[in-house]
Amino acid sequence: MAKPKLVLAYSGGLDTSVILKWLSEKGFDVIAFCANVGQHEENFDAVKAKALNCGAIKCVVSDLRKEYVENYVFDAIKSNAIYEGRYLLGTSIARPCISKEMIRIANEEGAEYISHGATGKGNDQVRFEMCAQALSPTIKCVAPWRDAEFIESFKGRKDLLAYCEKHGIPVDAKPKANYSVDENLFHTSYESGCLEDAMCGPDESMFKMTVSPKAAPDTSEIVQIEFVKGIPTKITNMGDGTEITDSLELFLYCNKISGKHGIGRIDIVENRFVGIKSRGVYETPGGTLLRAAHMDLEGICVDREVKRITEGLANEFARLCYNGFWFAPEMELIRHSIDFSQRDVEGTVEIELYKGNVTIRGRKSPKALYNADLASMDIEGGGDAFDYNPADANGFIRINAVRLKTYAALRAKDNA
Amino acid sequence: MAKPKLVLAYSGGLDTSVILKWLSEKGFDVIAFCANVGQHEENFDAVKAKALNCGAIKCVVSDLRKEYVENYVFDAIKSNAIYEGRYLLGTSIARPCISKEMIRIANEEGAEYISHGATGKGNDQVRFEMCAQALSPTIKCVAPWRDAEFIESFKGRKDLLAYCEKHGIPVDAKPKANYSVDENLFHTSYESGCLEDAMCGPDESMFKMTVSPKAAPDTSEIVQIEFVKGIPTKITNMGDGTEITDSLELFLYCNKISGKHGIGRIDIVENRFVGIKSRGVYETPGGTLLRAAHMDLEGICVDREVKRITEGLANEFARLCYNGFWFAPEMELIRHSIDFSQRDVEGTVEIELYKGNVTIRGRKSPKALYNADLASMDIEGGGDAFDYNPADANGFIRINAVRLKTYAALRAKDNA
Amino acid sequence: MAKPKLVLAYSGGLDTSVILKWLSEKGFDVIAFCANVGQHEENFDAVKAKALNCGAIKCVVSDLRKEYVENYVFDAIKSNAIYEGRYLLGTSIARPCISKEMIRIANEEGAEYISHGATGKGNDQVRFEMCAQALSPTIKCVAPWRDAEFIESFKGRKDLLAYCEKHGIPVDAKPKANYSVDENLFHTSYESGCLEDAMCGPDESMFKMTVSPKAAPDTSEIVQIEFVKGIPTKITNMGDGTEITDSLELFLYCNKISGKHGIGRIDIVENRFVGIKSRGVYETPGGTLLRAAHMDLEGICVDREVKRITEGLANEFARLCYNGFWFAPEMELIRHSIDFSQRDVEGTVEIELYKGNVTIRGRKSPKALYNADLASMDIEGGGDAFDYNPADANGFIRINAVRLKTYAALRAKDNA
Amino acid sequence: MAKPKLVLAYSGGLDTSVILKWLSEKGFDVIAFCANVGQHEENFDAVKAKALNCGAIKCVVSDLRKEYVENYVFDAIKSNAIYEGRYLLGTSIARPCISKEMIRIANEEGAEYISHGATGKGNDQVRFEMCAQALSPTIKCVAPWRDAEFIESFKGRKDLLAYCEKHGIPVDAKPKANYSVDENLFHTSYESGCLEDAMCGPDESMFKMTVSPKAAPDTSEIVQIEFVKGIPTKITNMGDGTEITDSLELFLYCNKISGKHGIGRIDIVENRFVGIKSRGVYETPGGTLLRAAHMDLEGICVDREVKRITEGLANEFARLCYNGFWFAPEMELIRHSIDFSQRDVEGTVEIELYKGNVTIRGRKSPKALYNADLASMDIEGGGDAFDYNPADANGFIRINAVRLKTYAALRAKDNA
Repeated sequence: MAKPKLVLAYSGGLDTSVILKWLSEKGFDVIAFCANVGQHEENFDAVKAKALNCGAIKCVVSDLRKEYVENYVFDAIKSNAIYEGRYLLGTSIARPCISKEMIRIANEEGAEYISHGATGKGNDQVRFEMCAQALSPTIKCVAPWRDAEFIESFKGRKDLLAYCEKHGIPVDAKPKANYSVDENLFHTSYESGCLEDAMCGPDESMFKMTVSPKAAPDTSEIVQIEFVKGIPTKITNMGDGTEITDSLELFLYCNKISGKHGIGRIDIVENRFVGIKSRGVYETPGGTLLRAAHMDLEGICVDREVKRITEGLANEFARLCYNGFWFAPEMELIRHSIDFSQRDVEGTVEIELYKGNVTIRGRKSPKALYNADLASMDIEGGGDAFDYNPADANGFIRINAVRLKTYAALRAKDNA
Repeated sequence: MAKPKLVLAYSGGLDTSVILKWLSEKGFDVIAFCANVGQHEENFDAVKAKALNCGAIKCVVSDLRKEYVENYVFDAIKSNAIYEGRYLLGTSIARPCISKEMIRIANEEGAEYISHGATGKGNDQVRFEMCAQALSPTIKCVAPWRDAEFIESFKGRKDLLAYCEKHGIPVDAKPKANYSVDENLFHTSYESGCLEDAMCGPDESMFKMTVSPKAAPDTSEIVQIEFVKGIPTKITNMGDGTEITDSLELFLYCNKISGKHGIGRIDIVENRFVGIKSRGVYETPGGTLLRAAHMDLEGICVDREVKRITEGLANEFARLCYNGFWFAPEMELIRHSIDFSQRDVEGTVEIELYKGNVTIRGRKSPKALYNADLASMDIEGGGDAFDYNPADANGFIRINAVRLKTYAALRAKDNA
Repeated sequence: MAKPKLVLAYSGGLDTSVILKWLSEKGFDVIAFCANVGQHEENFDAVKAKALNCGAIKCVVSDLRKEYVENYVFDAIKSNAIYEGRYLLGTSIARPCISKEMIRIANEEGAEYISHGATGKGNDQVRFEMCAQALSPTIKCVAPWRDAEFIESFKGRKDLLAYCEKHGIPVDAKPKANYSVDENLFHTSYESGCLEDAMCGPDESMFKMTVSPKAAPDTSEIVQIEFVKGIPTKITNMGDGTEITDSLELFLYCNKISGKHGIGRIDIVENRFVGIKSRGVYETPGGTLLRAAHMDLEGICVDREVKRITEGLANEFARLCYNGFWFAPEMELIRHSIDFSQRDVEGTVEIELYKGNVTIRGRKSPKALYNADLASMDIEGGGDAFDYNPADANGFIRINAVRLKTYAALRAKDNA
Repeated sequence: MAKPKLVLAYSGGLDTSVILKWLSEKGFDVIAFCANVGQHEENFDAVKAKALNCGAIKCVVSDLRKEYVENYVFDAIKSNAIYEGRYLLGTSIARPCISKEMIRIANEEGAEYISHGATGKGNDQVRFEMCAQALSPTIKCVAPWRDAEFIESFKGRKDLLAYCEKHGIPVDAKPKANYSVDENLFHTSYESGCLEDAMCGPDESMFKMTVSPKAAPDTSEIVQIEFVKGIPTKITNMGDGTEITDSLELFLYCNKISGKHGIGRIDIVENRFVGIKSRGVYETPGGTLLRAAHMDLEGICVDREVKRITEGLANEFARLCYNGFWFAPEMELIRHSIDFSQRDVEGTVEIELYKGNVTIRGRKSPKALYNADLASMDIEGGGDAFDYNPADANGFIRINAVRLKTYAALRAKDNA
């Protein structure tokens, strides 16, 4: 009888190599799937060779970088999404992109199962499987780190290494870092291990995408970033004249220049969907720059009350993305609504980068709702059609105060 | 017949000096009121002398600094309030504090009128008068900059100067800056004039509370800030051992050390309550530091869903404060609710200050909901009473996906 | 010199007839505009004649009924909008429809002014003028009931009658009701006069669209209402077989059958945008029926979380509509988002009408997310692709409780 | 060795009797717990006897009715909570009350386990266990209807009956209804069985608390209900003079008189927390009456913006209660905030009850923010301190329109 087929999200690391072999031993025909979402210095040929060496019947490497930037990262930028006021969703938002490709491969290969190496206490297991099930309701998920037998077999790193030795799986020479890392072109995250002590700061050596502000150049650089419909379309380095318009190249350049200037590190305790508080250190250089630019441009292009409403939608976006609901019907609604709000978000923001600082220097837009004449304290009206009359504020204030006066009268009666 | 009494919010500057005289000429007995909310280098004796010189029947100087820090600024810190994602409300939140004192004086003096020098296009006129009317429903507000006759008489700075010369009002020797400034201990704001061009950055010379990150020291400093019930209670400079616990002194020290390190400048276009977009440059050194520390501490002390709800309340707080509704019944409700959410926000945050960067290094709390054992990927359960079982995540994910699968089935039917 | 042209929203009643004449005397060329939004028993020929008789240079009667039903009323139904939990927006939602036509006429006629007979304490003045200004930023609004001279001239009904006699304006024979009425096909409202006493109930004689539940037939009737994309497309009377699909006719039939059965009366104290609490009695027969049907259909067609989000949007819709922001950018966003949420709201609801009661009897949809097998307590899975496993609920519950247990542990420590 | 102790929520019905015996056979010392939350015609002596007969080592009957009314039902009334716009939470809100007592007994008896007869697809399993775990983090929950062995043993009613016969468990003579029922003094719910067909209406015979509107008296009755701090404190029947002030008696009287007049039935498809849509028919006579009265009183006592905020809080309350988060930290915050909003909700509402209709006739309050003079279209000001000036509305409207005009200008440019 034919073995059941399974697509495994494979990184080439210790955990997923052991899992690949283990699943294979358990009777699955394992198709290893390597998603290229812009990990730092990844050698996909080596990963592929290792997968086959570990028993995969096939290894598919998919370059998802452009898809990831255009359909995921830019959606986050467009919405200003930020989880719990600080986290830019760098890991969260890569998951649906990877899951979608994993399901595409499963369909193509006729696989009924998917698997991954995410732990049983984290968010990623939820994100991978929720996205997968939303895209393919009958898909079956195998999560070894939630499997009693697997957990019993591999109680620590030593057990994993012994298994590798036994099965001839090559192991990386360098010892494991005392923390776990997740990488994609949007960010790198650091968690667990020594970072579980919430008072203990990250070691400078762990960072991959940014230098420390202290190690950043003493000279600032200035860039202009252009947006159309809330999407970055061009970056210009005002110093050396570099101009980039390709979406992926533009984003990578944002990473490079922000990373060079020490921009985009955070250290937080956040709330996982599984109800656990978790400490994470993140670096999101390009995302930090683009979000700041986008928010600033919205300042001149988006109406006050539209902004008020989209602030709420952005919080929903962040929570849904973080919790793995990317392909949920409510997320469709949120993204659709945010897209509508971005119709007029078009223009240019000028920014200075210096030792961790993203300093806005100015912004302009052909669709600006900002009107310097109307804003001016020195000009009575607002130019053109506008005849703003300061005397109107009398009535505006007095009518807005009607409610307050009524309430004050009640309180006065109480105190009488 | 007795002249009507009027309390004028008096700064000693050109505008309010002219207004004082003009109101006096109009038949009011003007009581000048100078609020000390921590303006930079203000000489209140000179201001008082000038007020009397301009025709005030009396001049009251009130030191509101401690009141301001404890009952207004700390409320903003406690709620993490930020207007439109960027503005820390530095001008907005001083207004109710000043209005309250103005009404106290009006009651004490038997004045039926108040007045101020705020313009007819801005937010401050709204804030002053809304707060005043909420506290004293029968108070009458005189706003010369909305008065047709006054506006007609004073079309520009030249008219104001001529009026001063005519009435012997001394004028500051130094020429007026090409922008307007508002100061209190929480922040300094810069608006109007050259800043009305949204592409034109602020001049380095305008800043009063902060140095530029570029001019900041090359050596960082580390502080620990302690909170009880969401209120900062102590700051310790880990380098020189400085410890401060007095509320006002603590806040001023935060300003000093943050200002020294170039922290807390922003440049934005924001939405005024009167419907106009406005460009402002702000520096809020101590507030930026304390907000970052407070948010971080909430990360370990506040439940995820409480945080979700208070994020919404914080947005309301910011809008209500910005729009002048400090003494509105809904603001009472919001502040009451936020207070309740802060019961367990207690602990210490360690922060490094360096060239514009506020870098969190760690945090701890005797009331932490953060549990390192529970968070750990390496520990199966959560210690103590917790027996977190990774296998539980299977059901958690599958049940959360039920809805998504139902929806996917509908979409599949659509596409069939 | 040519007189300035003005378009007046004219009803033919006492107030607007006096206003027409008065504006004419003031030097305007007045174009009377009568909007037919389905007022009860209105004779537009007589109104037109009267307008010309009062001095109008022209009278335009526009039948806006179909436009009103399709582009305004059905938007309210689709969103389930309800102001402060009780008011179906029957007056509010007619205002933008009327304003839009008023501006169309003003543009066509080259009029720079519009005017109306709304009072200075109410919502309608705001709605008319906000909508007009949003559609035509340079339009000038003349509101006689806010004009000091007009108010001084007409202190009561007696003055209005005297003015009519003097100017030969015919006056309705029947004495004015002791309350004010506003009518359109969506509802009739009753306010002011005797109703200002919040303890005094409405008189049975005032109602125009509904009988009292007590006077309704002893026999119920059953209808089926069909919706596509959240819009009612067909009503079938299951008793007599009546079938109606035309939008206007369908809505009028809903009014008729609901009115006959005493459905849709409310008596509330609501909050006006100008800060005043106001008592109103409303009857909204067809709207009450259609909203109940629509909400019920959403129960089987709309995902839980989409529903949660659109509940919030519906509250925004209600407030924006009530406050006159129909043509505001944020309302565009809200309506766009709600439209998106209605893509799958398709199906049939069966309802029994009886003495004030709208009783849902059942519902069905070709796009139902409701799945009887999945819902069934007697069936283990959910049929088809669904293999709902009750055991999954163990993990679902336990993971959802993680947070609560952490918090309980903190509280226990507090109490120890 | 001592057997482990377990507290079982026991109803005396077929399922929990089988469960009791089964748990006992499995080696638990079962303490049966019968919560009296006002079920219709329950004979608790018989239930107790049956429990002991089924093998319980003890049976505790707790009269929770007053506790339930005062600390749960009145909280729902006070907040106007309604799930998905229609469901008054009648089952949901009884669960925390029952769980709390179950945990009290478990602590008293030294039991480490609790159990219940709720199914694996429903909400009640979640509510019971979430509340229990929040109150006692180490409690262990046994849910036979999620237990593979139990489910395998009892595939249908026939298996349950066979088990009863085998173990001498007496079975109710009357055949099981073709739907499931849940009862407490707040409401009765009907689900499952024939009701799973969403087009099939409920049978008249199922209802326990209400008559059909058709069967209700032809004569209406009028009651006055008084509230203090949002809590009903007195009901007066204006016809026969009945006056009730005791909380439990008052609520039961509301049930009685509303039930008599056919008030409070609904038929909906709602969204369960486990992601399944579910059809339910509910009757909530007294709750429907009290909610209507309370909302109406809020109309005159609660500020507009406070109302806006508490509407959002009420939706949170409903969702949290429905999903079993009664003892969650966010629910503490919500309830605390709602309590604060009710300080001034004091007064009397007069209501007519007639054939399913709850008709408000009037309301009054010593703390009313409603001001008839201010509301009056005929009075220029607002009496007393209020000098509402209609002319102020000019400025109010014009300033509110500034934003809209700016946006209109942008759109016009687009279209040019």
